[in-house]
Amino acid sequence: MLKQNIGVVGVGVMGKSLALNFESRGYYVSLFDLSKDRIQNILSENKGKNLTGTNTIEQFVQSLEKPRKILLMVTAGDITDKAIQSLVPHLEPGDILIDGGNTYYEDTIRRHKELASKEIHFIGAGISGGEEGALYGPAIMPSGDKAAYNEVEPLLTAISAKVNGDPCSTYIGPDGSGHYVKMVHNGIEYSDMQLICEAYYLMKNVLGLSAPELHEIFKEWNKGELDSYLIEITADIFTKIDEETGKPLVDLILDTAGQKGTGKWTSISSLGLGVPLSIITESVFARFISAMKEERVKASKVLKGPNTTFTGDKEEFIEFIRQALYLSKICSYAQGFAQLQSASNEYNWDLKPGEIAMIFRGGCIIRAGFLENIKVAYDRNVDLSNLLLDPYFKEIVESYQHSAREVVATAIKLGVPVPGLASALAYYDSYRSESLPANLLQAQRDYFGAHTYQRIDKKGVFHTNWLEK
Amino acid sequence: MLKQNIGVVGVGVMGKSLALNFESRGYYVSLFDLSKDRIQNILSENKGKNLTGTNTIEQFVQSLEKPRKILLMVTAGDITDKAIQSLVPHLEPGDILIDGGNTYYEDTIRRHKELASKEIHFIGAGISGGEEGALYGPAIMPSGDKAAYNEVEPLLTAISAKVNGDPCSTYIGPDGSGHYVKMVHNGIEYSDMQLICEAYYLMKNVLGLSAPELHEIFKEWNKGELDSYLIEITADIFTKIDEETGKPLVDLILDTAGQKGTGKWTSISSLGLGVPLSIITESVFARFISAMKEERVKASKVLKGPNTTFTGDKEEFIEFIRQALYLSKICSYAQGFAQLQSASNEYNWDLKPGEIAMIFRGGCIIRAGFLENIKVAYDRNVDLSNLLLDPYFKEIVESYQHSAREVVATAIKLGVPVPGLASALAYYDSYRSESLPANLLQAQRDYFGAHTYQRIDKKGVFHTNWLEK
Repeated sequence: MLKQNIGVVGVGVMGKSLALNFESRGYYVSLFDLSKDRIQNILSENKGKNLTGTNTIEQFVQSLEKPRKILLMVTAGDITDKAIQSLVPHLEPGDILIDGGNTYYEDTIRRHKELASKEIHFIGAGISGGEEGALYGPAIMPSGDKAAYNEVEPLLTAISAKVNGDPCSTYIGPDGSGHYVKMVHNGIEYSDMQLICEAYYLMKNVLGLSAPELHEIFKEWNKGELDSYLIEITADIFTKIDEETGKPLVDLILDTAGQKGTGKWTSISSLGLGVPLSIITESVFARFISAMKEERVKASKVLKGPNTTFTGDKEEFIEFIRQALYLSKICSYAQGFAQLQSASNEYNWDLKPGEIAMIFRGGCIIRAGFLENIKVAYDRNVDLSNLLLDPYFKEIVESYQHSAREVVATAIKLGVPVPGLASALAYYDSYRSESLPANLLQAQRDYFGAHTYQRIDKKGVFHTNWLEK
Repeated sequence: MLKQNIGVVGVGVMGKSLALNFESRGYYVSLFDLSKDRIQNILSENKGKNLTGTNTIEQFVQSLEKPRKILLMVTAGDITDKAIQSLVPHLEPGDILIDGGNTYYEDTIRRHKELASKEIHFIGAGISGGEEGALYGPAIMPSGDKAAYNEVEPLLTAISAKVNGDPCSTYIGPDGSGHYVKMVHNGIEYSDMQLICEAYYLMKNVLGLSAPELHEIFKEWNKGELDSYLIEITADIFTKIDEETGKPLVDLILDTAGQKGTGKWTSISSLGLGVPLSIITESVFARFISAMKEERVKASKVLKGPNTTFTGDKEEFIEFIRQALYLSKICSYAQGFAQLQSASNEYNWDLKPGEIAMIFRGGCIIRAGFLENIKVAYDRNVDLSNLLLDPYFKEIVESYQHSAREVVATAIKLGVPVPGLASALAYYDSYRSESLPANLLQAQRDYFGAHTYQRIDKKGVFHTNWLEK
């Protein structure tokens, strides 16, 4: 039997789509899944294609050319460990496992180490793009040993999204770095979505705009600086009418956000690293509060808001919101990319932020025109400590800050929650402050806990007996 | 030799103070420390007191009456494990170890379980109050097996702070609950300090107030609703003059906040539990940003702020700030206490929020008059889901919201970062919103990831093909 080029374990929505993607690029693909029905369905829906179903792990492994290349697309967590355990006895030194799941990066670091002791290569590959991306071209963030990466590079490059001919897949770094970058990608996705929701909420509730009007605005925004997949689908969403009621479908959807945990992981990592990641974290908290629907309904009947209405110019305010959204998005990416650099130092990953921005440009959920500007910023200065310091971003935030301040101040006076937009400005204003009030905080800590402090006028560590007159 | 009532392992600042506190209440105290000098110094400074120094762990354990009661006051982490390992071979079933360190609650859960298998009781006791509190009366949050707690209750009650005769020490719950409550206490302390710092920053930079003026304001505030230890010491701090320069000392302190990690742990736990803890988390991030001093100095020369100055009424604005501070403090406690209730459910701890508020009233860093109102709120309604729904707090936040909105809107327009105050209002406005924009977010998730959604008008889980026209 002809040996297959790549094997896929787990052919649910994502695994199936990636298998078909490989096949469409000319590869022979072997499939394995604990559900024989799934395999059967894929084969019967795709007759004549170079797909081979297998019944046992042994048969699956034997069907592959050496060194074997196996993509795991199973539910992240214990199931990944079980899949690896069942594969390992049949593998040989030099074989390559690729975990394409939504895996926690510390699990990837552990598995990389465990498999290295058996001379089996392990590539942790963050894959973003949903079903459609997986089928036609996702963004891929592969990490692990460079030599093993080189073996699978043609396969990953082939199936990845392309932007102006450049593949949205590149070697990220050692062990868990690919899944880490994917995690931060998802965290950024949380804040992108939250900021869009706040813009929507203001236009709907403060300006009273209808779904068709919102469609037009987001469609328009998508032609400019905000050009991105998420703005595009937001514009689309407002056109969808519920057949039963004739109302815009979005107005009938319950406002309780779900989540799969990657945003939360990004925030937890930022806390561990000591990096401020306020915008993404406020977005995670906003999802938590949205999920407390019953309690909110109860509280809404008890707690009053302000008695104020909007009196400004509608058209002008819409443009202010657009600018606030872009400024906040820039601040969120500045935080996310600063966290990537901090993690890179912490784990010795040598991440290349410019290349990461490049692969985010296509295939993935946060794909957007402005990622090109991030790439350019790091091209200009490879050691850029914060995106806000790059001339392009500096100019945008400086000139848009007035609008952003108006929007947030107005929202606050009207009682409209804008945690994402507000934390973006707080970050901008903190980051550009030579002096913050932490001198008082250090005095307090020294007062009650003898934690000592430093001085601005001389070197050393000081302690004061604050009660002594 | 007369057997001692209690042993203290580790006689650094906190251990020594607690040992002297026990002795002052009539107990005989045995001391052990790896540093013989420390023991020697304590004994020579405290001649005639009922303190016994010991040279070996064995001698230390033998010096104690049975069941032995040993307070560990060593650096939290590995050193606690080492201290336990060296003690255990000399202990007998029924002996009681009390860990009074700043221990991560999950470590306490683990140690409790490990020691239970050896029939040694383990009490995790959060202790707050700094050196002075330890010496004269700290707040104590003990947890573990109830029977073992009963054995040590008289000792802990004796040394604890008292408010109107009530001890600031009470049984918290099983295993790690005491250290968990102490951790949340510290998280709340982070936000209390951050909010005070923001109030200070506004009065100093926007209103241009001097240290003596700030002293008077905080002294005045301490007589009203804000009456608390942290406001009191803040007032004190502004009176301290640097002898060398003649300037207020607080103005010479470097604005880079240190931390020991408990605020961070509180935020990480909130993310794990799915509870919004935005104000404390913004406070943790604010410490992170303050620590980036060099980068901020650099950024301050690059990034411009707005060109606006304050034009309002100074006296009025000071009162607005006071109201904003109290409203934000209430929101932060509402979040912290909601997290305690969530953790209580998660770990089956059966925490009593009213009793916890009671013991916070004295001895600890966040002690404040308004904790009495929290106790009253839970007395009124033991199942209160959020402090904001209690009549007292509802009235305050409703009537102070105007001032708080003015303060935050003004700060934002002037480019002054107020992440704590802003996130408090965002929380208040989110919590009291029947509808949030998460309907759009769920539409987006369903669009790109087929994550499904619920509807407001019928039960079920729905998925839409958003591209289908």
